[in-house]
Amino acid sequence: MAKDALDLLNFKNEVFKSYLFWSSVLLLKMLLMSLLTGLQRFRTQTFANPEDCLLSKKDKVAYDNPHIERVRRAHLNDLENILPFFIAGLFYVLTDPSAFLAINLFRLVAAARILHTIVYAVVVIPQPARFLAYGAAYLPTIYMASQVVIFVF
Amino acid sequence: MAKDALDLLNFKNEVFKSYLFWSSVLLLKMLLMSLLTGLQRFRTQTFANPEDCLLSKKDKVAYDNPHIERVRRAHLNDLENILPFFIAGLFYVLTDPSAFLAINLFRLVAAARILHTIVYAVVVIPQPARFLAYGAAYLPTIYMASQVVIFVF
Amino acid sequence: MAKDALDLLNFKNEVFKSYLFWSSVLLLKMLLMSLLTGLQRFRTQTFANPEDCLLSKKDKVAYDNPHIERVRRAHLNDLENILPFFIAGLFYVLTDPSAFLAINLFRLVAAARILHTIVYAVVVIPQPARFLAYGAAYLPTIYMASQVVIFVF
Repeated sequence: MAKDALDLLNFKNEVFKSYLFWSSVLLLKMLLMSLLTGLQRFRTQTFANPEDCLLSKKDKVAYDNPHIERVRRAHLNDLENILPFFIAGLFYVLTDPSAFLAINLFRLVAAARILHTIVYAVVVIPQPARFLAYGAAYLPTIYMASQVVIFVF
Repeated sequence: MAKDALDLLNFKNEVFKSYLFWSSVLLLKMLLMSLLTGLQRFRTQTFANPEDCLLSKKDKVAYDNPHIERVRRAHLNDLENILPFFIAGLFYVLTDPSAFLAINLFRLVAAARILHTIVYAVVVIPQPARFLAYGAAYLPTIYMASQVVIFVF
Repeated sequence: MAKDALDLLNFKNEVFKSYLFWSSVLLLKMLLMSLLTGLQRFRTQTFANPEDCLLSKKDKVAYDNPHIERVRRAHLNDLENILPFFIAGLFYVLTDPSAFLAINLFRLVAAARILHTIVYAVVVIPQPARFLAYGAAYLPTIYMASQVVIFVF
């Protein structure tokens, strides 16, 4: 039916290498969201816990600062979309897809999610910027998961 | 001690095939939560960002619409439970479990999480519907992770 | 360029065994957060949905109970950090790292995330307790993902 995982989860397989590379880039991008949240917390002196208010008397606990909440929403959106991509992409590699298609889909997802973060949480750009960045990662992820369902069925 | 990953992460291994199939079904189910949120946002004209309010003068920013927040909670619950299942299930395949048990656990988790979404965010059904659907996916995931701890120890 | 996945995703590889063990421990720890939330919900009779208020007349729907929200934040922090570690750690195993370094990094991440939960959501301990526990898992995860980027590039 198919090649062994051995032949596919292998650094000689350009598709797997591309998956590993772009996934790791997205891992780093996603982890940086915590720094972005921290930056906004210190800048606005707004924290999530009483025990975090210790540097200044102006430090306060609040959950409605628009700058912080915007970064939090962007981070949650990453959890909702990038984490499923890690799984869908890995499974998709196992279906032995066309290298040209697969590598370009991985590039598209990575570029789209980086752009999504920028237009959502760094420099707010009017819609449909975020909508398009969202869809350009969402649809390929749906496609990959669907291909796995069809392949295994 | 055990079979090689080669023998297990292989389409000849029915347990791995079952894991891939049901995980991909759950990936698609989880990704659809975003559409469900979007649907509720447009229906109630309630958005999370000022830049999203551009289709109608009635569009507003709010975080307390019960229909939207219900779908958001169901989605977050998916992140808390389905994403760990993807990892626990993959590790569990590597312990070379009984095919009968493993395949039926994967089916149970998938069915339970689909039911969980339906009774939580589509047609609200009184408890203990959601509680039972929750537990029927939670306990097998705990079991799988425990088996891996025991197996590797 | 590198060993095959076969040689690495193998129970003879102590690095992979260590990854599987500590990841499964963290899976169980993360899944226990739901029980901790439930415990706080029943103790404070505060629920997230109207259909969950059925045991007592004092049961209410609220989203601002500090005990519950603290556990929820600790759980979300797990999703933001432990789930990426599962991916980064698995990829890192494939780069065939030094066993001494890799195994101790896995131990460090696991210990740090368990401590993070304790000082955040079980017994609140003043800063910098949580900050240090956070960093002791965050930096190794960044390191692992960076190593994969460099290795594959």
